[in-house]
Amino acid sequence: MGSPGKSLKISIIGAGSAVWSTRILVDIMLKKNLQGAKVYLMDIDEDRLKLVYLFAKRYASEIHADVEFHATTDRIEAIRDSAFVINSAMAKGHRYYEMMREATERKGYYRGINSVEWNMVSDYHTIWGYYQFKLAVSIARDIEEYAPDAWLINVANPVFELTTLLSRITKVKNIGICHGHMEFWNIVRELRLDPSKVEAEMSGFNHVIWLTRFKYDGLDGYELIDKWIKEEAEKYWRKWWATTSNPFDIQLSPAAVDMYLKYGMFPIGDTVRGGTWKYHWNLETKKKWYGPYGGPDSEVGWALYTTYLAYQMEMIKGFVQAESAPLTMLIPPKPSGEQVIDITESIAADVLRKYQVNILNNGLIPGIPDNVAVEVPAVIDGQGVRRISVTPPNNRVLKHVLLPRMMRMEWALHAFLEPSKDALLEWLMYDVRTRSVSQAEEAIDAMLKLPGNEEMAEVFK
Amino acid sequence: MGSPGKSLKISIIGAGSAVWSTRILVDIMLKKNLQGAKVYLMDIDEDRLKLVYLFAKRYASEIHADVEFHATTDRIEAIRDSAFVINSAMAKGHRYYEMMREATERKGYYRGINSVEWNMVSDYHTIWGYYQFKLAVSIARDIEEYAPDAWLINVANPVFELTTLLSRITKVKNIGICHGHMEFWNIVRELRLDPSKVEAEMSGFNHVIWLTRFKYDGLDGYELIDKWIKEEAEKYWRKWWATTSNPFDIQLSPAAVDMYLKYGMFPIGDTVRGGTWKYHWNLETKKKWYGPYGGPDSEVGWALYTTYLAYQMEMIKGFVQAESAPLTMLIPPKPSGEQVIDITESIAADVLRKYQVNILNNGLIPGIPDNVAVEVPAVIDGQGVRRISVTPPNNRVLKHVLLPRMMRMEWALHAFLEPSKDALLEWLMYDVRTRSVSQAEEAIDAMLKLPGNEEMAEVFK
Ligand SMILES: NC(=O)c1ccc[n+]([C@@H]2O[C@H](COP(=O)([O-])OP(=O)(O)OC[C@H]3O[C@@H](n4cnc5c(N)ncnc54)[C@H](O)[C@@H]3O)[C@@H](O)[C@H]2O)c1
Ligand SMILES: NC(=O)c1ccc[n+]([C@@H]2O[C@H](COP(=O)([O-])OP(=O)(O)OC[C@H]3O[C@@H](n4cnc5c(N)ncnc54)[C@H](O)[C@@H]3O)[C@@H](O)[C@H]2O)c1
Repeated sequence: MGSPGKSLKISIIGAGSAVWSTRILVDIMLKKNLQGAKVYLMDIDEDRLKLVYLFAKRYASEIHADVEFHATTDRIEAIRDSAFVINSAMAKGHRYYEMMREATERKGYYRGINSVEWNMVSDYHTIWGYYQFKLAVSIARDIEEYAPDAWLINVANPVFELTTLLSRITKVKNIGICHGHMEFWNIVRELRLDPSKVEAEMSGFNHVIWLTRFKYDGLDGYELIDKWIKEEAEKYWRKWWATTSNPFDIQLSPAAVDMYLKYGMFPIGDTVRGGTWKYHWNLETKKKWYGPYGGPDSEVGWALYTTYLAYQMEMIKGFVQAESAPLTMLIPPKPSGEQVIDITESIAADVLRKYQVNILNNGLIPGIPDNVAVEVPAVIDGQGVRRISVTPPNNRVLKHVLLPRMMRMEWALHAFLEPSKDALLEWLMYDVRTRSVSQAEEAIDAMLKLPGNEEMAEVFK
Repeated sequence: MGSPGKSLKISIIGAGSAVWSTRILVDIMLKKNLQGAKVYLMDIDEDRLKLVYLFAKRYASEIHADVEFHATTDRIEAIRDSAFVINSAMAKGHRYYEMMREATERKGYYRGINSVEWNMVSDYHTIWGYYQFKLAVSIARDIEEYAPDAWLINVANPVFELTTLLSRITKVKNIGICHGHMEFWNIVRELRLDPSKVEAEMSGFNHVIWLTRFKYDGLDGYELIDKWIKEEAEKYWRKWWATTSNPFDIQLSPAAVDMYLKYGMFPIGDTVRGGTWKYHWNLETKKKWYGPYGGPDSEVGWALYTTYLAYQMEMIKGFVQAESAPLTMLIPPKPSGEQVIDITESIAADVLRKYQVNILNNGLIPGIPDNVAVEVPAVIDGQGVRRISVTPPNNRVLKHVLLPRMMRMEWALHAFLEPSKDALLEWLMYDVRTRSVSQAEEAIDAMLKLPGNEEMAEVFK
């Protein structure tokens, strides 16, 4: 029997992604089960595409991986007959969204009109994500036509909105994937627990997941958290404030603990970046809750992140250009820990494993409609995704967090599917930063007038 | 065969209601099918109870109605073995809620923290409706115990919240009733249409209903509305502004027309009183949209309404005291137009008719969960309520109006069922009037410290 990967076609759309490409590519090359695969890298940015292609080729030869790489700017060529399509594309690039943020900040919307309760994440583009939504839908349409049996594994944000949207309006088998839930292990480490004795479950929406079950060696893990808060948090925060160099280091921040005390369950991963404006009014407030940089989504934290992404790109470029530098020195040949390629293997080679995925609710979390994507544990194997029973978040989380977040999702989808200026304005009529109708109108107008937004302006008339 | 009313027991809880009592009592006396009934008037206010009792007795003798009246302050005595329980009770009275309004207005919440998007109605007490919710539930519990087969017809507000709550947590057959939908006929009159040729349907939530179907003589009624807006609205508004003496006269106000243009369906009745803060920032804004008094829910309109209620009570008192004054001069013996007693007759005497009722959705309006009360047309007869298919509101109304209103309902129910100070605070974290956490905390504290709120303060710790 040959490898299950033999002549398996995997395409990566947005292969130039600074965050994703190298991790995904190395993961593929490391998988025994995927040897023999053909990987189509697709991007509209030819420079980035070429860079990633050169990286992949050389990395493969360094570690003797039997994976065939192709680079193309033709999306159909990439998608045609693929068994897996991975989407990591972000339409228009980071700078474009910063422009919209700045234009609407000038009208009184700190961090931009896209930042709202439970979605303060700076590249989770919902109400202003028109081009991003459109791109994801057109990728799915290509799959329907040119690779109808393919699995779409979507890591492009907003995973919550896109998983819901694609599942509602296309026929494509799709799974939304996020690495946020892995932050849970920072709690385990800080509590000095033996990971092998931990039993945990998280559920909710993408970027709004909660630790719904936590056992340690048969005992109630929440008691350990309570003890930590009582006895160690203050000391931890003092040291953390003085030494942390990473704006994303917030899993045990005062914000996380406050959310836990308020909602009765611990917020995991990017959930901590959310919350109501209580945690976000301004940089000062953000610092109080998220530490010296005000978290990843403050003006400081986000500048650090985006320059870090650019720097990482430059590093790869440097290594690729210096032909003698071993790429394995830059990125050691070991699994990235991301789920994407593990999932690909589970389906392609029928390797049953448990994952944290985004799929339609269909009854998994009571109180959430069936046609809304939830982030839950699920089992994946050669048959695809198998739903398992899930411990749902408590009532406080359900009512005060998931419902408002779901409403914003519905509004973003509605604005995309039935676009009108009113649909954008209504978004702001519920925004605590809005002081008048004219302020809201000015913000929308400023956004629609930006260079690059000509099509949006036409659509949202 | 005797009258179906023969020894039928009907109890009215909150029988002293200024709005309801006389209308309901006259309606009962006028119904042939209800002759022979025993009506138990129950209230905790002995003066009002006595007044209404004297009114009823004398009115019955004036029009020779065969209805037996009893007055009691004992709720169980009233409810025991009733076939119908009508609830029009409002715990604590209007002045109590005005006190909460004033206390929270002082903290920056114009019209009080209870007024929010799509519920600006000044006696629709949700987040601060603790005693009102508790009263409605305890009435339902008494019915479960002492009259398990009775129908509860609830006219006490908030009908949306109470119908949902009672349907979720009690076994009582209950229907929520509101007269707001009748305002539709003002449109028919203003458009000079022949009512017999009108076909119309309204649906949504109580106080948030929309004209989902409108035919006139087979033609599209909305075209007539569009024509009126284009050709006559300006003239109408000029005259209306100069002459209207009723703050409730807003069915064709600029607010209503603006909502129609924005959401694509016409808002009916109390729906017009809602909307986002766009229509409500302050008195000036309210006047722009609702006319010279700023609508019923401005400081002006509401003062007019509450003094009108008191005045009406005094009128009744005056007539009752002047023993020679015929009560039929004050309230002529013809049906009030309210649905309550018609419904009672439909069930008791098996008279099939169509009504506008509040019942659990259970699939009637797609996109709304099953266990949420909707206001829809339904048929009632001896078998009870028969669900019929309903024309649902459009997507814009569903997403931008019903979802946010539903969320507030869920929050109000959650605050009542799992009370905590945090549940109240969260309500304000999504309020566009909130500028800081401390403002919200101060408003809640001010409210909980008011005399009369001792129990609430204890419960919402
Ligand atoms: N799911 C997760 O856990 C997770 C984590 C981090 C980032 N993300 C998301 O991943 C996405 C990529 O982030 P990034 O920082 O790498 O962005 P990036 O801008 O560096 O990468 C996006 C890539 O998409 C390409 N692209 C743009 N339009 C395209 C089109 N029409 N067709 C094909 N390719 C196109 C760009 O050229 C670029 O190479 C974002 O949506 C981000 O929010 C997800
Ligand atoms: N559904 C509709 O169409 C509609 C229209 C108008 C008003 N309403 C509602 O009707 C209700 C009554 O309004 P109102 O202006 O007549 O108020 P009201 O204060 O005049 O009448 C309420 C009555 O309830 C009594 N009451 C208070 N606590 C009681 C208790 N524990 N047991 C028995 N009775 C008690 C009071 O003594 C009073 O007589 C309100 O909830 C109001 O919002 C509904």
